[in-house]
Amino acid sequence: METIKIQSDERIQFIDITDRINKILERSEIRDGIVVIFTKHTTTALMINENEAGLIEDVRNCLERLVPNLNYSHDRVDNNADAHLRAILLQTSLVVPVRNSRLDLGTWQRVFFIELDGPRMRNVLISNIRIE
Amino acid sequence: METIKIQSDERIQFIDITDRINKILERSEIRDGIVVIFTKHTTTALMINENEAGLIEDVRNCLERLVPNLNYSHDRVDNNADAHLRAILLQTSLVVPVRNSRLDLGTWQRVFFIELDGPRMRNVLISNIRIE
Amino acid sequence: METIKIQSDERIQFIDITDRINKILERSEIRDGIVVIFTKHTTTALMINENEAGLIEDVRNCLERLVPNLNYSHDRVDNNADAHLRAILLQTSLVVPVRNSRLDLGTWQRVFFIELDGPRMRNVLISNIRIE
Repeated sequence: METIKIQSDERIQFIDITDRINKILERSEIRDGIVVIFTKHTTTALMINENEAGLIEDVRNCLERLVPNLNYSHDRVDNNADAHLRAILLQTSLVVPVRNSRLDLGTWQRVFFIELDGPRMRNVLISNIRIE
Repeated sequence: METIKIQSDERIQFIDITDRINKILERSEIRDGIVVIFTKHTTTALMINENEAGLIEDVRNCLERLVPNLNYSHDRVDNNADAHLRAILLQTSLVVPVRNSRLDLGTWQRVFFIELDGPRMRNVLISNIRIE
Repeated sequence: METIKIQSDERIQFIDITDRINKILERSEIRDGIVVIFTKHTTTALMINENEAGLIEDVRNCLERLVPNLNYSHDRVDNNADAHLRAILLQTSLVVPVRNSRLDLGTWQRVFFIELDGPRMRNVLISNIRIE
């Protein structure tokens, strides 16, 4: 298991971590299998989709439309309920097949870490498992 | 593979099952790996997030806002389409890294079983896999 | 690892692939474990839920209500931003326990491939892993 450290710079930010995961997979002895990508935070998420600037803007607007910044109960404890709720609609973990020591992604697929309450230092765990 | 049995008491209920999963992991011979948590129902879900009462209330309200109780086609068969639709926006399975026979969660992360059409008796499967 | 090829016929279509996955599992030497189901596309998704015609209609309407066909930035590049956004609210990968060479699903659970920008030829990867 390895950890990717990510320093976000904005409150909401989409960070493409595909190349960093592939570098870990290339160093591993496991050639074919699966990899589990897991974010250790309750106000971040993971996503697999296309890396196109317009689409990233659309995803951000969609999250803000589905979960607007209303008056939430959790905001009395910590003023970031919108970030938790957006994270809950996305993924905490992803599982991706690995082939020849690389993510076996489709042509347009990229793996994103999504910061929803930055800027902060974040940790994503990478666990790969061999297929016999 | 082990099964966690969960008796829900309300129609919509958030049940923290982190400690029950850790007890299963502590009894297992697998020290480091991943665990798959899988709910066997179409009107329940799984979530990883913070266990704070205000936030749980916010998640519940958010689900009821995104999927209101409208006149759904499925309601002619079984009057619980809202529960199915809310489940589909959340997760049927979670994958979490395991380290030292425990879930390798972040500080604020807890694993929740979400009942969306209770009260009922429910089954969640726990499968853990070793990392070499 | 095996690939399921799926030819969709409509723009939005729900295709039950449970039997095709079970056939792959029955041919495999792995009797008990987990299976990872992964779609290689950014405008498709995977879902586990009930195969009831009314419910499928409800899921489709719910996706169209949550992500209406607005004027999206990505539409200037490729006129399918709604399909990407709907995919992001659903799943790219599923993990399901396997018992006796079959998906260990609940009574009402079925595995669906969801086409969101068809008709197209699509690929879904099936990777199964043994539990010791």
